Amino acid sequence: MSGPAVPAGSVRIFDTTLRDGEQAPGAGLTAAEKLEVARQLVRLKVDVIEAGFPAASPGDFEAVQRIARETKGGIAVAALARCRDGDPQRAVEAIRVAERPHLHVFIATSDIHLKHKLRIDRDEALRQAVEWVRYGRNALGADAEIEFSAEDASRTDLDYLLDVYEAVVGAGASTVNIPDTVGYAIPSEFGALVGRVVERVGRDATVSVHCHNDLGLATANTLAAVQAGARQVEVTINGLGERAGNASLEEVVMALRTRPTQFPELGSHVQTEQLTAASRLVSYLTGFAVQPNKAIVGGNAFAHESGIHQDGVIKNPLTYEIMTPQSVGLTGSHLSIGKLSGRRGLQGKLRELGHDLDGEALDAVYRQAIALADLKKEVTDGDLLALVEARTSDVPASIRLEGWSVTSSHGGSATGTVSISVGGDVRSSESTGNGPVNALFSAVDMALQPILGWRPVLTEYEIKSVSAGEDAQGQALVRCRRSSDEGPGALVVSGHGLSTNIIEASLEAYLVATNKLHGAEINGVSAAFVSKTVAEDLP
Amino acid sequence: MSGPAVPAGSVRIFDTTLRDGEQAPGAGLTAAEKLEVARQLVRLKVDVIEAGFPAASPGDFEAVQRIARETKGGIAVAALARCRDGDPQRAVEAIRVAERPHLHVFIATSDIHLKHKLRIDRDEALRQAVEWVRYGRNALGADAEIEFSAEDASRTDLDYLLDVYEAVVGAGASTVNIPDTVGYAIPSEFGALVGRVVERVGRDATVSVHCHNDLGLATANTLAAVQAGARQVEVTINGLGERAGNASLEEVVMALRTRPTQFPELGSHVQTEQLTAASRLVSYLTGFAVQPNKAIVGGNAFAHESGIHQDGVIKNPLTYEIMTPQSVGLTGSHLSIGKLSGRRGLQGKLRELGHDLDGEALDAVYRQAIALADLKKEVTDGDLLALVEARTSDVPASIRLEGWSVTSSHGGSATGTVSISVGGDVRSSESTGNGPVNALFSAVDMALQPILGWRPVLTEYEIKSVSAGEDAQGQALVRCRRSSDEGPGALVVSGHGLSTNIIEASLEAYLVATNKLHGAEINGVSAAFVSKTVAEDLP
Repeated sequence: MSGPAVPAGSVRIFDTTLRDGEQAPGAGLTAAEKLEVARQLVRLKVDVIEAGFPAASPGDFEAVQRIARETKGGIAVAALARCRDGDPQRAVEAIRVAERPHLHVFIATSDIHLKHKLRIDRDEALRQAVEWVRYGRNALGADAEIEFSAEDASRTDLDYLLDVYEAVVGAGASTVNIPDTVGYAIPSEFGALVGRVVERVGRDATVSVHCHNDLGLATANTLAAVQAGARQVEVTINGLGERAGNASLEEVVMALRTRPTQFPELGSHVQTEQLTAASRLVSYLTGFAVQPNKAIVGGNAFAHESGIHQDGVIKNPLTYEIMTPQSVGLTGSHLSIGKLSGRRGLQGKLRELGHDLDGEALDAVYRQAIALADLKKEVTDGDLLALVEARTSDVPASIRLEGWSVTSSHGGSATGTVSISVGGDVRSSESTGNGPVNALFSAVDMALQPILGWRPVLTEYEIKSVSAGEDAQGQALVRCRRSSDEGPGALVVSGHGLSTNIIEASLEAYLVATNKLHGAEINGVSAAFVSKTVAEDLP
Repeated sequence: MSGPAVPAGSVRIFDTTLRDGEQAPGAGLTAAEKLEVARQLVRLKVDVIEAGFPAASPGDFEAVQRIARETKGGIAVAALARCRDGDPQRAVEAIRVAERPHLHVFIATSDIHLKHKLRIDRDEALRQAVEWVRYGRNALGADAEIEFSAEDASRTDLDYLLDVYEAVVGAGASTVNIPDTVGYAIPSEFGALVGRVVERVGRDATVSVHCHNDLGLATANTLAAVQAGARQVEVTINGLGERAGNASLEEVVMALRTRPTQFPELGSHVQTEQLTAASRLVSYLTGFAVQPNKAIVGGNAFAHESGIHQDGVIKNPLTYEIMTPQSVGLTGSHLSIGKLSGRRGLQGKLRELGHDLDGEALDAVYRQAIALADLKKEVTDGDLLALVEARTSDVPASIRLEGWSVTSSHGGSATGTVSISVGGDVRSSESTGNGPVNALFSAVDMALQPILGWRPVLTEYEIKSVSAGEDAQGQALVRCRRSSDEGPGALVVSGHGLSTNIIEASLEAYLVATNKLHGAEINGVSAAFVSKTVAEDLP
């Protein structure tokens, strides 16, 4: 069994944005999008990337394997598995290729979960835990990280919980994780619980925590655990995750960094200057907004308003700021594109904003930025970031927009026409609606329904300006399902569009989502974002 | 001096949404909007409403006084004042009419604030604190609540801080507040600090805390303080506030309620079923989105995605839910308007959604709902809430939209015409733009500039669908300033529009914002939302 892999004097940052984060309703990502996030996590220098749940679907298996293959530089790749025949094997198969494989098996241990969900008793749960930890250790060898989680640990009988942890460490677990699955714990009691686990198995294994935010306490519980001896923390970018989400990576990391006297010799290796770029990327790809008053990465986190505070900040930033905006990668500069000296200038600017582009990717953004400069007065940081982000969610487009027009006037009605090519075959149609978006989306539906046999059904629609000004680019986000696919298990995908014309941005987004739905249909379950429809946990 | 007003067995909930919350950049409210929020806080049954900072502007003075006059039922109304001649007098004048006046005076006590902001020494700060607490006690009499805050307490020398609290209690303060002004504290150390203050002055005064969320710990610090003996908590709806905001009222209240064994006999009187309505109202009026993974009031807070969790929830909600959606006022029902039996049915439905309407207000929403039913298949809960919300920000409209039309097509350009009446005088104009919104807003600008002498400048633009479906209503939000008013102190106002046509919703929002800017210009500083432009704290 490998000893704790964390160097003395640091806390291991285990990012689960791609596993627990992606479980948030509506946050599903394609395999390509998951890879994009994993690359940003590498730049951020987390210690472990939990890439997914390979048994959930072939798509998620493939995404985990690709991330495992690609991730280097000492960063571990973890996969989740239930203690159930088939799951751990699939997880091992997916991560075996990793430079540092990290298997994460779990079983629920609270009486309420054992009774109502798994319908087994405590002894049986312990037996299964030991069995699959032992399997993982044998399958991956002495150097791999084998982690065991006791789901709903914070509501589990303490003596039984400690027995389980001791047994799995005896069977080869090198990390034991304490999840506050329902977000129920209060920092003082959670710290005490962690202290008991550290006391029992801390010499032989790394103690980890995984906190949910249902009462707004995930970050605090995580930090209380570190003070009590936990040396791995499971966190997500933007606190993404089921329900109210998980502990937020950026909050935990910046607290450790900002208050070293409270966490003596316990920093992380995270490159905090990459936090803003990571937050934007995850928000963009999942379509989950970050509220202005979100700590560290919210739009207002470093903004000051009242006269009292402005005055203090002008006299000395330390009066109201405990961190600098630069330390989390917020640049204050606003350079218009005219001042960029060609591709090289753009490259430097993008690097400042947390994006390292070259070759064809840089050329493409450069061309778009120049074209944009013809449409609006000033190309801002926000515009450049939006152009870069638009590239990260490229979807193979078998359905393409060839043209459209719309007229609308007071009172609300609108008439629109579209032409769409499907595999080269162009179709046009016209429709009216209670507004221009309604008219054009209906026209798209009319053109596609005869070919696809279904139409996209809009479940959410949003447009935001990327920067200030009446000529700003609009970033559209839609979520859609297939008309043939209803009920709570239906596959819902997101699509983005970007244009100075909000109607064009809306149509683009609608077609991206339609292409995703069409692709998912063609490829069966090959895309990761389909994973949620097939994951079940029947006992 | 009055004793602690909190009954044994409860924590006093001091809501500062209208003071600290409104200080968030861009969150400014009109006096009428502040009153609307205050009414919801009464329904929520908080203990204290901090209504504003009367010395900041005549507008804020007026708003505080109106709230003080109107608020009954044992709920106190607080006003903030610096320890500086003029401030406490204005605050006393504003709240004197309240059933329960609560004066809140503060001065910074940390060396960094004393040296860099106030430029006075510790003795002088203590002297001023005592002077203005004594003034407040004399001015408001023995029964009033007099609260003193030591700004930046968590970075203040402990011995000095305790001396200050002891001195102000001697001078008549009945509540002493410990602000973690920069959001710097960690729960364990903050609890210890609170414990020391309780030990020193807890017999003679209520100990209060006011936590900021810069490290994501505001709720946890607040709860640690309650465990250490604090009996007043200063919180805001949605955690609104400067930078990363304040401790969130809904998180603190639901933690106290959900974990009674951790807070023995320490509940609040808050009607938690009103939390969702309060959250929506504050989000709508300030234009600050609540992220989906926000605890308690986020769109996903009670949603479950993964197969594992869905399975558990279906078998027994307790496996993954520690609170019911109903307990925070989330109704699961989706009743279409056709099934409502007239006004009475609508009234019942709205009451379920947290809105008590009758008379003309009910009639107006009823008429709009019936009209909407002609435009879209189904009128949902979301639609009804949007109609109610649209009423809460009514602005006197001297500038009105009379008509518009627009055409746009592939490639992006658009041509639009508008007719606008200004005080009865109708003006039309036509413009082109890089999209329909750009074209129409430019046409509005062209029509208005000759009359107003300025044009509205768009700083933010956003549209969201109110419910699912291609025929959904769009809710537009814009923020604007005057072209004649630039720089960091410029007045920025928000405007909303609601229509099934997003272009119409956008124009409506733009005109609401323009009317607000025009009104602010006409009335000088009479509106509360102008307060930020005149608040300064020069020593």
